[in-house]
Amino acid sequence: MQESSLLSHIAERSRALSARFPDVLIGPGDDCGVVRSRAGALLLTVDQLVEDRHFAPSTPDQHVARKAVARSMSDLAAMAAHPAWALATAALPTDSARWSEPRVSALFDAMASWAEHWHCPLVGGDIATLPPAAPAVFSIALGGYPACDRGPVLRSGARAGDELWVTGRIGGSLASGRHLLFEPRLAESAWLAGTLGPALHAMIDISDGLGRDAARLADASSARLELHADDVPLHPDAGGTPFSAGEDYELLFAVAPGSSLPACTPNATPLTRIGRVTAGRGCVLIGPDGRATDASELGWDHR
Amino acid sequence: MQESSLLSHIAERSRALSARFPDVLIGPGDDCGVVRSRAGALLLTVDQLVEDRHFAPSTPDQHVARKAVARSMSDLAAMAAHPAWALATAALPTDSARWSEPRVSALFDAMASWAEHWHCPLVGGDIATLPPAAPAVFSIALGGYPACDRGPVLRSGARAGDELWVTGRIGGSLASGRHLLFEPRLAESAWLAGTLGPALHAMIDISDGLGRDAARLADASSARLELHADDVPLHPDAGGTPFSAGEDYELLFAVAPGSSLPACTPNATPLTRIGRVTAGRGCVLIGPDGRATDASELGWDHR
Repeated sequence: MQESSLLSHIAERSRALSARFPDVLIGPGDDCGVVRSRAGALLLTVDQLVEDRHFAPSTPDQHVARKAVARSMSDLAAMAAHPAWALATAALPTDSARWSEPRVSALFDAMASWAEHWHCPLVGGDIATLPPAAPAVFSIALGGYPACDRGPVLRSGARAGDELWVTGRIGGSLASGRHLLFEPRLAESAWLAGTLGPALHAMIDISDGLGRDAARLADASSARLELHADDVPLHPDAGGTPFSAGEDYELLFAVAPGSSLPACTPNATPLTRIGRVTAGRGCVLIGPDGRATDASELGWDHR
Repeated sequence: MQESSLLSHIAERSRALSARFPDVLIGPGDDCGVVRSRAGALLLTVDQLVEDRHFAPSTPDQHVARKAVARSMSDLAAMAAHPAWALATAALPTDSARWSEPRVSALFDAMASWAEHWHCPLVGGDIATLPPAAPAVFSIALGGYPACDRGPVLRSGARAGDELWVTGRIGGSLASGRHLLFEPRLAESAWLAGTLGPALHAMIDISDGLGRDAARLADASSARLELHADDVPLHPDAGGTPFSAGEDYELLFAVAPGSSLPACTPNATPLTRIGRVTAGRGCVLIGPDGRATDASELGWDHR
């Protein structure tokens, strides 16, 4: 893997970037990328993807690239933002049999293509080398703007009396391999924020598991969340433990009581009411027998 | 290292961030950080720092944090921009003896403190785990705005007839340990861009070595750079090969002929004319005997 030829490849590939994305003033190849920025709120996130941790070494590079980009997109979706630009890093083992220059070039191409798939130019990045036995480490940083006048939807806005809803269906994402191909809920969150406006009180993506992330929303909102196990929409892939597997990348959101929501978003993603917000602290899962169990440990520490 | 308590620590630490940086609307702790953005050009960069590659495992964490942040700051300096916000990632071996939770917390504190040292809030990040034997991998992404009306200074603007200058003194950075404590040339580049305006034609930071980075500027500008070996200001630490060691993080810049520059910037950083731009391609180093040698390989591939 020659740095100079890889940099040439990236510069070459990005030459047409400004044509496709007029807000890209300078693409990859200089000391910084330069984009035209808007006044107002800029949302920023970064996520890492580690080989053997977030994907198996045998995973096709297209899926690795897709997941690396989609994970960060999901963070923007969780605040009802649209992506504006991306930065990528790769730290790769010096093992030219596995990480050949053509493969690395193709992988950066794939990350750029997936970013563009979600209407987002990849404007810069960095490559570093690791010892031969180390896992590959990728990161994607994203900037974005609020999808509508509602502005960013925080975790901290849930209030007693709110209804709790989720997008999509939960469970079995990791075991089924669906975690590699999930669709970040950008369109859904933009639609929710536009439709509900200020009645959309709080939102989070449930990448670490419904229970664990619900507990984070409860904590940030200084409220108590009650989830009804029977109401959680299960994915056909879901096995016995839909609440603890994580990697669903659906949205959990709190809306003002009495808000009207259809059964699906306009792009046919199911919307399901699964609980409510009450005064108090913590997050409980209420079983069919009415018993409440602590839900905050139902998840996966997916670092 | 417990994720939840580490996240609490980061959220706690960042609570006062908005007070110190009014443009931080939402600090670390939600799905994204949110900053108030300006209309105009936004500059974006990301750099990685790998244990055993960019720093020795015995390096104090304060120095690791400083270098991780300073490397990306140097990219902004190279385009005459000021930092506006930072994102940090760490991928750390699961070796609780080495990477204990207090150590990791302190390291993130140190990265945040160094970012703030350069007037830049750390608004978000991510932590991932690696196998016990893997090296630690850090990345810092930065956004920034042009330091003055001149706008971003690219690598591609050098023209035949331009004078070539450098900031500071070159050589011995790695061997002396100075690479851990270098001062990114933010003030110098802002002053140069403000003073020279459009006469500042092109700029690059010479982190990979004077020859190698000069060749990049030549390539981006479709011009030929001639560096006079005798004119290059050597650092007292410089050994026998000042052109090949890299890690100097000084600025190389091309200015319109006849531009007037003092011997030092207002903050006392030396400014030295070391060559010129001519028609042609490539980058040569002209020795005391007048012989020209190809300079483009004089550097360090510091991935």
